[in-house]
Amino acid sequence: MRADVLRLPMAHPGDLSALDVAIASGRVEAASIVAIIGKTEGNGGVNDFTRGYFTQSLMALLASHTGETAATLAGRIPCVLSGGTEGVLSPHYLVFSRTGDHTSVSTGPALAIGTAFSSPMDPADIGRRAHVESVAAAVRAAMADAGIDDPAEVRLVQVKAPCVTSARAEAARHAGRTVLTADPGRSMAFARAAGTLGVGLALGELSAPSEAAMLSDFTVTCDRASISSGVEVEANEVIVLGNSPTWSGPLRMAHRPMADALDIAAVVAALDDLGLDARPQLTPSDKARIRGVLVKCEPDRRGMIRAQRHTMLDDTDINAQRHIRGAVGGLVAGVIGDTRIFVSGGAEHQGPDGGGLIAIIAEIPGSLS
Amino acid sequence: MRADVLRLPMAHPGDLSALDVAIASGRVEAASIVAIIGKTEGNGGVNDFTRGYFTQSLMALLASHTGETAATLAGRIPCVLSGGTEGVLSPHYLVFSRTGDHTSVSTGPALAIGTAFSSPMDPADIGRRAHVESVAAAVRAAMADAGIDDPAEVRLVQVKAPCVTSARAEAARHAGRTVLTADPGRSMAFARAAGTLGVGLALGELSAPSEAAMLSDFTVTCDRASISSGVEVEANEVIVLGNSPTWSGPLRMAHRPMADALDIAAVVAALDDLGLDARPQLTPSDKARIRGVLVKCEPDRRGMIRAQRHTMLDDTDINAQRHIRGAVGGLVAGVIGDTRIFVSGGAEHQGPDGGGLIAIIAEIPGSLS
Amino acid sequence: MRADVLRLPMAHPGDLSALDVAIASGRVEAASIVAIIGKTEGNGGVNDFTRGYFTQSLMALLASHTGETAATLAGRIPCVLSGGTEGVLSPHYLVFSRTGDHTSVSTGPALAIGTAFSSPMDPADIGRRAHVESVAAAVRAAMADAGIDDPAEVRLVQVKAPCVTSARAEAARHAGRTVLTADPGRSMAFARAAGTLGVGLALGELSAPSEAAMLSDFTVTCDRASISSGVEVEANEVIVLGNSPTWSGPLRMAHRPMADALDIAAVVAALDDLGLDARPQLTPSDKARIRGVLVKCEPDRRGMIRAQRHTMLDDTDINAQRHIRGAVGGLVAGVIGDTRIFVSGGAEHQGPDGGGLIAIIAEIPGSLS
Amino acid sequence: MRADVLRLPMAHPGDLSALDVAIASGRVEAASIVAIIGKTEGNGGVNDFTRGYFTQSLMALLASHTGETAATLAGRIPCVLSGGTEGVLSPHYLVFSRTGDHTSVSTGPALAIGTAFSSPMDPADIGRRAHVESVAAAVRAAMADAGIDDPAEVRLVQVKAPCVTSARAEAARHAGRTVLTADPGRSMAFARAAGTLGVGLALGELSAPSEAAMLSDFTVTCDRASISSGVEVEANEVIVLGNSPTWSGPLRMAHRPMADALDIAAVVAALDDLGLDARPQLTPSDKARIRGVLVKCEPDRRGMIRAQRHTMLDDTDINAQRHIRGAVGGLVAGVIGDTRIFVSGGAEHQGPDGGGLIAIIAEIPGSLS
Repeated sequence: MRADVLRLPMAHPGDLSALDVAIASGRVEAASIVAIIGKTEGNGGVNDFTRGYFTQSLMALLASHTGETAATLAGRIPCVLSGGTEGVLSPHYLVFSRTGDHTSVSTGPALAIGTAFSSPMDPADIGRRAHVESVAAAVRAAMADAGIDDPAEVRLVQVKAPCVTSARAEAARHAGRTVLTADPGRSMAFARAAGTLGVGLALGELSAPSEAAMLSDFTVTCDRASISSGVEVEANEVIVLGNSPTWSGPLRMAHRPMADALDIAAVVAALDDLGLDARPQLTPSDKARIRGVLVKCEPDRRGMIRAQRHTMLDDTDINAQRHIRGAVGGLVAGVIGDTRIFVSGGAEHQGPDGGGLIAIIAEIPGSLS
Repeated sequence: MRADVLRLPMAHPGDLSALDVAIASGRVEAASIVAIIGKTEGNGGVNDFTRGYFTQSLMALLASHTGETAATLAGRIPCVLSGGTEGVLSPHYLVFSRTGDHTSVSTGPALAIGTAFSSPMDPADIGRRAHVESVAAAVRAAMADAGIDDPAEVRLVQVKAPCVTSARAEAARHAGRTVLTADPGRSMAFARAAGTLGVGLALGELSAPSEAAMLSDFTVTCDRASISSGVEVEANEVIVLGNSPTWSGPLRMAHRPMADALDIAAVVAALDDLGLDARPQLTPSDKARIRGVLVKCEPDRRGMIRAQRHTMLDDTDINAQRHIRGAVGGLVAGVIGDTRIFVSGGAEHQGPDGGGLIAIIAEIPGSLS
Repeated sequence: MRADVLRLPMAHPGDLSALDVAIASGRVEAASIVAIIGKTEGNGGVNDFTRGYFTQSLMALLASHTGETAATLAGRIPCVLSGGTEGVLSPHYLVFSRTGDHTSVSTGPALAIGTAFSSPMDPADIGRRAHVESVAAAVRAAMADAGIDDPAEVRLVQVKAPCVTSARAEAARHAGRTVLTADPGRSMAFARAAGTLGVGLALGELSAPSEAAMLSDFTVTCDRASISSGVEVEANEVIVLGNSPTWSGPLRMAHRPMADALDIAAVVAALDDLGLDARPQLTPSDKARIRGVLVKCEPDRRGMIRAQRHTMLDDTDINAQRHIRGAVGGLVAGVIGDTRIFVSGGAEHQGPDGGGLIAIIAEIPGSLS
Repeated sequence: MRADVLRLPMAHPGDLSALDVAIASGRVEAASIVAIIGKTEGNGGVNDFTRGYFTQSLMALLASHTGETAATLAGRIPCVLSGGTEGVLSPHYLVFSRTGDHTSVSTGPALAIGTAFSSPMDPADIGRRAHVESVAAAVRAAMADAGIDDPAEVRLVQVKAPCVTSARAEAARHAGRTVLTADPGRSMAFARAAGTLGVGLALGELSAPSEAAMLSDFTVTCDRASISSGVEVEANEVIVLGNSPTWSGPLRMAHRPMADALDIAAVVAALDDLGLDARPQLTPSDKARIRGVLVKCEPDRRGMIRAQRHTMLDDTDINAQRHIRGAVGGLVAGVIGDTRIFVSGGAEHQGPDGGGLIAIIAEIPGSLS
């Protein structure tokens, strides 16, 4: 198997023309597309409709090419979007495809990808132990889909997990059950926590994590889990990305935890792993080898970064997640020399407390693509 | 002469307790303070009152120590504040003082500082040729105050220039004159342009710049001008900072133009000039030598950064200057390893179009402080 | 002919389920729908994508019912959306349909509706005399479509006019022409001004208005023009609404200019015209007769409302149009007792300076519907 | 005793010039000032520093007139500020004074005012039963200060209550106690709840309310309690306003609960009580009799207003309290015909759930002032 990644621009959240062109020109076959990860220019909050707009447009486009219905496609292809292109960030999306083409030669383990959907979650289970286990099972399924046996080969697990809404809380009540919290924002945070613990469990990093640790004990972390949560999904959608000796192609992925929002060393180290020197910035030719950069971060909950006060958490005008995405996005874009960085907030348990993680996909020199 | 810089935190915009402690403990003498440059946690716009609150609190504190009135102090000590601590940025202020103390030894040219106030501006002159010349004259006066003859010794000229307000436009009308524009935001931009050209003229970089170039020909630039504009001043307030062989003390300043918002190389190069290696980040001991970091930047008016679209200029929710301060602040803070960065937007003509400039004050190893 | 209006809720900007149900249940025939006016929950600015999302979803739904393509429908059915449901405002849309059904009896002139599209505008003409005349011609065409000869029968003309974008400015330049302004916000304001003058010209209220009056002489007004502008259209889309003796059905429309943002008397007077007493608020049964409320308003450009300062124009955190929509929406909703109010900002020349206009559609008692 | 109220404008949050003029001209004697209630143009959130700026400026001004220190004045004169002049609202403040002057004649009970400060709160008590009792005791003290025995004479009790901060939570921990919540926003809500229950207890409306009711049982309400909470106070500051037969002067106060954000009838009824007819709006001469309008409101927590969805609670761009203040402010300003309305959010338990209350001070015709 061989995985490919296209990084495409959009003029607005309903603009899929670049993918249309790529399909028309044969750069990618519609039927080979297995996942999308993208950054749209909304506010990233509950009332960010750029994600729904993009997804509707994407599924309509793919439907016109594959003949499937949009609903079928939405149940088969994870589309994980993060709203908010604060600061220098550029709206873009990564199109992951895989083919059986074997003409390419890798110089080592190559990028592997697998996906899975869990069963729809009972709203009363969201953010609880059952949620952790549902994610863990889906991660194992996605690893199997990718043909990855060894958890050490996994570099990043991207999960999109459902959260509680008023309607779902009501449905749970009717069924005689109680949701963990009816506050959507809080529920999303618990869903991200449960997702992270599920990934950690599947990867063997965490053993039987307790419910009590969620949103409470931030020493419990998984550096390879990137979780988003939203009302738009009912099941856990999982994308496993790794480097596998059984896959071919020129791409490889590296990742690092980020200790805090200033951890430029983590960015540089992940690039080092891919043979890319960024001291202080990639050369144009090295930059051209980058296919995707994925970052998780969050405003330090203690209100300080390296002993200095920050003001993100007390700002009534700008949401704290928008602040941190803009800042960490500016840093990573500066090191890479490119503003097409996927930066997502809400990094509870995903990497060190107050920090997060970075994962980079790049073409490896010497590979025949 | 010897210049010193204290970098102090504030808990809120009315909190001058750190300076009060510094004066009480003898770290700085109130009478030796000649200028303040600071970053407060407002929105940085027309309705940012954190600047006025800080200034009122500062002048009241100094008045209690020097016996002068707050009004006298405000007419003698430039207090240049930039609102907006987006992202990781930490509210803080730099206290510049100078003394005749000669016990310190420099290993070369040392930080020099001079200040000057122009006469109050006629509102009808703001943003015009007369404004350029008023600033140029004040810069020359501040250079003389610093004992700097050679413009090459200047590293940064910080100017705070008045802008037109409705009341000032009305006053001009009564006097039979017309203001360039009655739009406060536009007037502030013209004032920054005039200030930059005035600095360029005084430093010999620009010769007789035409009015027509302002906000129009962005190839006309000055890399050592950092201009802010606001309703709170009536005269041009000027702070000249440089390195002079006739000054002593352990501090030195370096600066670089920034080509764009991703120009991490400029940050690293300015640090190199001070003997500080940041590949990728300063060591803790090197970081401790930093006394102040001053940055100007702005969202590229062409809507692109290195060929990728950005969304700052079309955002109705977050002001474009807030976006860019957060992003560039995140980058510079990451390189330095410290969030106490003065980042100001509105960089018209101040460095390359779409970029800006960076200036850093640091202690030089081997100096006896 | 008979005009009908459905007022439908949406759960989010892509939710057309209420219309789907209305079509499925026979409350409205898809083929009879001639226009949509709606309020979506975006920010109402350049980066408000809720309008595009709603329109895409609407046209897809209608296409599934009529068999036409979405593009054909978009070229035939004006869909005028205003983003921003600030304060108490509720996202909703009005579906205008017309049928040849003659079984209903009116007690007098009944609601009439006509629509028209101009040719696509040359970007260089936007905001100029040619734009005024294009709108005037389209208004006359829409009046003819509605069978209205007498301009006195017109109550409101809703126009959606194109504005200049960077791409369009570039195209004009290649064609050897120059756009009036390349600033999108400014271009939208000019387009609204030109639209208003075009409506005034067609209705015989204004005679040969000069280009110079636009955005300059605010004594030139038209109380029956409601104009929005956006990048999403290339032609002027016009909806004429009036009361005509040749139309039947139970609906009638009233309108009033609003002198300022506090002009509650105008709201009450428009309701009086429809036999509805709102002193201080409609009774529940009277409220049930309301089918649509359309308001235009704007923050007074002089910074004062009835001699007291307002702060809308200087707010860097919240756009001034969002402020005024929330305030006037709160007032009108309070008088009506219902939060489904279409409130649109940007009322240049549309009613008195600093004010705007209100138009109300209601069922007339005694009519057989 | 006689109470007077001046309603004064400010050009910015540090502008007390109108009060300075009023004192200089003898309209009010500095020593007779007992309380201030005002609306400043900040965002009304945790990072709204306009309140601190105004208070600092006010106390400095009064200190220059009375010879007391600013700290002494701050411990004697409650200064209750609400940030946020959304929509049409105009920044202004009410200066309450009282004198022994007996030359005026009332036509019935006249405006009475009393104030009190509780002891500083132990942070661990905030939002608990002890907080309720502390407020109740202070209300009784303020009633005694006003010479009011009968709770029925009270029209409004304005309270400013302290909340937990990180530092206070830490202090409590060191003292071996636990705070109710360390989340500042949540703590402020609990403080408002405790304040309301304290007022209700002192006025005899509520008997021994349980802690469990706070922020949980919203049928427990007090229509005469208006509570704000902030980090800037350590004690509960209380202003009792009522109509008393033992007071003289031309002023009287009326109040009404507001059932929801559209309850225009409540506004009109409160005006009716004062002999003012607002159907639909006050006449200019009646408007001139108004001295102060105080409103509490909040976005309905159930997400609906009169069965229609609102979007305030899900908006990541604009805080929900800013939304509701703008809407209800627009409504009340429209009825009064004046934009100087004090509108404060966070109305938990203060009036009906989803609504709030209104209180109006006006001059009574026939009074000799």
